[in-house]
Amino acid sequence: MHLISIDDLSTADIETLFRLSDGFLEVASRPIKKVPTLRGRTLINMFFEASTRTLTSFELAGKRLSADVVNIKASGSSVSKGESLKDTILTLESYRPDILVMRHDKVGACRMATRYTNARVVNAGDGSGEHPTQCLLDLYSLRRTYGSLEGLKVAIVGDVLRSRVARSNVFGFRKMGIDVRLVGPPTLMPPGIEQWDVPVYDDLSALEDVDVVYLLRMQLERAKGTVPPVPSLREYSRIWGLSPQRLRSGQRVMHPGPINRGVELTGDLADSAPSLILHQVESGLAVRMGILYHVLAPHPGEGPLVEEPLA
Amino acid sequence: MHLISIDDLSTADIETLFRLSDGFLEVASRPIKKVPTLRGRTLINMFFEASTRTLTSFELAGKRLSADVVNIKASGSSVSKGESLKDTILTLESYRPDILVMRHDKVGACRMATRYTNARVVNAGDGSGEHPTQCLLDLYSLRRTYGSLEGLKVAIVGDVLRSRVARSNVFGFRKMGIDVRLVGPPTLMPPGIEQWDVPVYDDLSALEDVDVVYLLRMQLERAKGTVPPVPSLREYSRIWGLSPQRLRSGQRVMHPGPINRGVELTGDLADSAPSLILHQVESGLAVRMGILYHVLAPHPGEGPLVEEPLA
Amino acid sequence: MHLISIDDLSTADIETLFRLSDGFLEVASRPIKKVPTLRGRTLINMFFEASTRTLTSFELAGKRLSADVVNIKASGSSVSKGESLKDTILTLESYRPDILVMRHDKVGACRMATRYTNARVVNAGDGSGEHPTQCLLDLYSLRRTYGSLEGLKVAIVGDVLRSRVARSNVFGFRKMGIDVRLVGPPTLMPPGIEQWDVPVYDDLSALEDVDVVYLLRMQLERAKGTVPPVPSLREYSRIWGLSPQRLRSGQRVMHPGPINRGVELTGDLADSAPSLILHQVESGLAVRMGILYHVLAPHPGEGPLVEEPLA
Repeated sequence: MHLISIDDLSTADIETLFRLSDGFLEVASRPIKKVPTLRGRTLINMFFEASTRTLTSFELAGKRLSADVVNIKASGSSVSKGESLKDTILTLESYRPDILVMRHDKVGACRMATRYTNARVVNAGDGSGEHPTQCLLDLYSLRRTYGSLEGLKVAIVGDVLRSRVARSNVFGFRKMGIDVRLVGPPTLMPPGIEQWDVPVYDDLSALEDVDVVYLLRMQLERAKGTVPPVPSLREYSRIWGLSPQRLRSGQRVMHPGPINRGVELTGDLADSAPSLILHQVESGLAVRMGILYHVLAPHPGEGPLVEEPLA
Repeated sequence: MHLISIDDLSTADIETLFRLSDGFLEVASRPIKKVPTLRGRTLINMFFEASTRTLTSFELAGKRLSADVVNIKASGSSVSKGESLKDTILTLESYRPDILVMRHDKVGACRMATRYTNARVVNAGDGSGEHPTQCLLDLYSLRRTYGSLEGLKVAIVGDVLRSRVARSNVFGFRKMGIDVRLVGPPTLMPPGIEQWDVPVYDDLSALEDVDVVYLLRMQLERAKGTVPPVPSLREYSRIWGLSPQRLRSGQRVMHPGPINRGVELTGDLADSAPSLILHQVESGLAVRMGILYHVLAPHPGEGPLVEEPLA
Repeated sequence: MHLISIDDLSTADIETLFRLSDGFLEVASRPIKKVPTLRGRTLINMFFEASTRTLTSFELAGKRLSADVVNIKASGSSVSKGESLKDTILTLESYRPDILVMRHDKVGACRMATRYTNARVVNAGDGSGEHPTQCLLDLYSLRRTYGSLEGLKVAIVGDVLRSRVARSNVFGFRKMGIDVRLVGPPTLMPPGIEQWDVPVYDDLSALEDVDVVYLLRMQLERAKGTVPPVPSLREYSRIWGLSPQRLRSGQRVMHPGPINRGVELTGDLADSAPSLILHQVESGLAVRMGILYHVLAPHPGEGPLVEEPLA
């Protein structure tokens, strides 16, 4: 199976993935942090957009599973010579990779890639589209923290407009029974937000009864040359920035990273006990190991690509 | 032995390489696409010019042979601090690599490198000089397709002027008994082409009786700041671009990639059955595995560098 | 233990490291240049400043010890999105790496990193601060050449001002009983040099009685946009550049690389028998393998991070 959208996974798939991730989390605590599961398999990380955090996470996940890992970055690649995405994927397919992890700046690019390869494609972020592995690591982090996801209340706060994380998380969280809401200034909500069928608030009082405040990264680097959707970062931070004082007792804070200290949240909040931010990163490596295993495992209705159960 | 020019190989060497490649092609079809052949050997890919396609192919070849692979790109390297090629090679030699795969923008750079290292040097393209591994993969692709090379008729079409592939292929194809000709507008033929001792045509009628049309990439990225050798791409495409309609029944099409859809050939031709383009890429990985093995294997008249036959 | 400053090591540590390096030097001479020592361990090379030579050396060291090696370069990383060093290190720590090799353009950055990770941190150069692994490889190269370090006379010559190598080497050489002096024009000596408590000469006659002339690289690439500390390279070379004629019989020459042929030394000197420059590079790989082993080995007073002696 591919993992392009969080919708590609059933709740049963997600539960299976959690159990796999439990095992891989334990591997990371060993002195020898490596298992032979994907020995001789080829993982290609094809990143058309820079993202060291996600790339490093997948690279380590592949190596700890003993796969052969090759990273390709668009800069300096055939892409910069004008090669089309189709031809890039067809070329890679000729090497018969087992898994293609792909980040691209265009919505739908990863889905399109599945048409040109027999490899399992994993979407590591496609433009303003989806970022399903982020959603899965967030869910796993919540499950590790709360035991059960059903009925949890989560507010996703901030720059929904330029966030692919928001989209994947709204749909993925709801699928697992989490009560989700969006919070932020109207200028940071995308057009058509009504169709997401999720409550939207433009007031921090909407955080009062939630278990978790999920802060989005203010996407400063995507704002160049355009009219910024907020008057100033200082203004944004004053109104929307989260501090320990604004957090209610027992509430937890999440963030997909990299964080902007002093913008979405204060530095002391990032470093405080209620913060799950580094817990998310740790969960991410285990979940990505689980995903690499899971997409290669046999699934109903699929062809003979996987010749044998993985050891 | 080194592989700097296609002339470094006898026809017997090339036949040996084909047999090796047959074996490695089979490896690529296994679930565990890896053999221990070069375990503990060090392969350094030293690329002074960007080329993700060739680099990825050699990186995968090395990893599937279980070698330790290190990629070095000139940007960000000591080269950008003004270090000479000689000192770069001498430095790398101090690490005692087994194989140095090198791409450079100057003709003769790879040959020069052999003076400063005990490693086997493989030329992955030196300026407008040679690209022997491309020639070998093309030969292997032809052999897989036609069984025998002797007497095949191949036309190499297009931007001969700026192509190192053309030079290597003319000489390598002829060595294996292929009947080669060059076809294209006179402005795309290099000065001194007479000395190649190969028929040159400036008319597409020269394609009529060939088995294979080998299209060269129009080297758009090398044209910056110079007078372009063709009036316009549209014009070039209209006159010289290959389409299914211009191909005769039974003819095959090859291209070293990356292709410019709509320039050298139409997109539907690239995707059609007569196209061997992806077959070439697949052949390339197997051939490069074969080359990495072959340059390290014992050869007559060589010193004691290889202490033992490879397993 | 971490390796941030050459002062972190006792003379006994350094002797232990030399014995380890002897073993790893022998490994590099085998056909199979690889040992399973760090199998399943994770080495992250975090380079905020470009340095292909040092990075390649650590990458190969890690791979030949069978560690999983991940290279991260600041360009294209979260750092370019404005993430703080603290958050970058905290994120990497979530992957539970065993060793973090770090180069940074700010003095003290590596020391600071130790506060945010349980990994062993190895300083691969921090701004104009220190470069302890260079010092150790230089010491090892001297020990291989002379047998004993005690009483050796070494002159460090040239661009002390912009060299982190000079600082580490003055302190490290002296620790091992070497008689060190600095030589060069006053404009290339840093303010406060008196506090180094080392003899400083501005005349090449200070080289007459030394065993080894250690030339520093003229840091041309750090001079952009500032008033150069020497009137011209030609002038510098004429007065300070070392040639075979200026070297006394039996003297040896060292240089941390990359060398500027025709500036600090003539090309024929670099290539001559008295030059230890490539001997240093070779020593560097063995010493870095030794360092990667040594920082993970159990040390008195340390916590339970290393669960078992390494095999």
